[in-house]
Amino acid sequence: MFHTLDIIGTMAFALSGALTAMNKRLDPFGVFIIAFVTAVGGGTLRDILIGRTPVGWMRDINYVYCIILGYFLSIVFRKKLEYLRRSLFLFDTIGLGVFTLIGLEKGLENNLNPLICISLGTMTACFGGVTRDILCNEIPVIFRKEIYATICIIGGILFFVLKYFNLKDDILYLSTSLVMIFIRLLAVKNRWSLPPLTRN
Amino acid sequence: MFHTLDIIGTMAFALSGALTAMNKRLDPFGVFIIAFVTAVGGGTLRDILIGRTPVGWMRDINYVYCIILGYFLSIVFRKKLEYLRRSLFLFDTIGLGVFTLIGLEKGLENNLNPLICISLGTMTACFGGVTRDILCNEIPVIFRKEIYATICIIGGILFFVLKYFNLKDDILYLSTSLVMIFIRLLAVKNRWSLPPLTRN
Amino acid sequence: MFHTLDIIGTMAFALSGALTAMNKRLDPFGVFIIAFVTAVGGGTLRDILIGRTPVGWMRDINYVYCIILGYFLSIVFRKKLEYLRRSLFLFDTIGLGVFTLIGLEKGLENNLNPLICISLGTMTACFGGVTRDILCNEIPVIFRKEIYATICIIGGILFFVLKYFNLKDDILYLSTSLVMIFIRLLAVKNRWSLPPLTRN
Repeated sequence: MFHTLDIIGTMAFALSGALTAMNKRLDPFGVFIIAFVTAVGGGTLRDILIGRTPVGWMRDINYVYCIILGYFLSIVFRKKLEYLRRSLFLFDTIGLGVFTLIGLEKGLENNLNPLICISLGTMTACFGGVTRDILCNEIPVIFRKEIYATICIIGGILFFVLKYFNLKDDILYLSTSLVMIFIRLLAVKNRWSLPPLTRN
Repeated sequence: MFHTLDIIGTMAFALSGALTAMNKRLDPFGVFIIAFVTAVGGGTLRDILIGRTPVGWMRDINYVYCIILGYFLSIVFRKKLEYLRRSLFLFDTIGLGVFTLIGLEKGLENNLNPLICISLGTMTACFGGVTRDILCNEIPVIFRKEIYATICIIGGILFFVLKYFNLKDDILYLSTSLVMIFIRLLAVKNRWSLPPLTRN
Repeated sequence: MFHTLDIIGTMAFALSGALTAMNKRLDPFGVFIIAFVTAVGGGTLRDILIGRTPVGWMRDINYVYCIILGYFLSIVFRKKLEYLRRSLFLFDTIGLGVFTLIGLEKGLENNLNPLICISLGTMTACFGGVTRDILCNEIPVIFRKEIYATICIIGGILFFVLKYFNLKDDILYLSTSLVMIFIRLLAVKNRWSLPPLTRN
């Protein structure tokens, strides 16, 4: 179940990367690389920082297959993706929740401080998009618009609060991800965003 | 022999990095760093991802000497490099072939899936140039123009096809790199490039 | 003592990152991430390249607390930071010296070649700022203006020269960092910079 959601999230992230790259008029190789780093960039950075090498997608080839599939889907349906925007957004939101939880888990496995675990969760969910934007020569969108990373941080804090009360793992994971998905839906519906921090 | 070609490739990549940096009017330190990351960036990323640390250029100081030499050559000859364009292009093409093979080899040494090996080969040959472009605030050129990475992928596939037929290592390496060099010469001569993937 | 200076340097770097991010009108999350990578980016890259994982800030949570503190200070005092410019510049210069020494030390601990140690020192002091500029979509400032990295390189060479004469560690560290700080003060006072390397 958890793994299925992981696959759905990976594919959604690959599609989002492919779309951004196409809007930048990149060639098929460029589109593939952007799809790839958007999908696995966050987990890869996490694995590098904690020393879990070879990194995740090198150990489990299913991620690579899944990105290749997402890539071809994005090419075939590239003129119709506007109509699928709603489904894509839902998948992306599932990815946000699942990836954050995977990052938190890896931090716990390595006995790291809760603050570090939360940063690993946020990184897993957000850094693929950051790399996508850097490769496309943009200031990362999550530094400017939308509360995306903030949701990961809230999810991470909630996770440790619930864990403190000794909830069973299943309920812990389910409730954390549902809260995150719910906040994200609310945030996009109401166009919540953090105001820029300015100096004048 | 293989090591000599590796050195030639490294120096060619360092020169290409230095030239790009000078065109951006960077200072001598900036030019050096760009030369450095262009030359060893691909292998460094590969080593980080598979956990082969300290990374290659820290273990074999010859790479560093070779980049320093390339850097000074690029400064001394900086006003004449246009005339050397043809030799530089040849060296760069040798680098493309050799670096791809080195990446494939490292993947095999770590018993990784052939798809992962091909991506390591492509990464070794291409990622230095990608880092160069990011540091110079450009969308990486191999995502937009020229079939460069595509040649690495073709070379990687050919490598595994020939390996499947149990060719001797010498012939395997030689034929793979010659095919890659040949395609690259054809590609540049005929200005082959992949069309952008657009959405309308 | 050394650790105190390290903390001062980390906080100064976090403040400098936060300021750059605010000038780019990023949101609070963006400002935090830029403050974070500016402060620990250099040491993190160093740790990844030499295989010292989990990286430094995951092992010693004090770095994280210190960045969080610097972040909040930068928000509270964001309209008054111009008046504090002189103190900030001093702290930043201390950071430059201390971070270079920490990088050199890590290289020695891993028995790396002096050239590699000097590059690790330079990287520790400079790469946080490089990452800050890349994330803010700028060509890194140390590739264009100011002699910043050059001071790290001079400091690194001096370190090995003094070491060769068997100076006691205390005196070695103190004199190297004082020379670096002194050159930096002179450099900024006299607006020293390296001229761009151009090709015509």
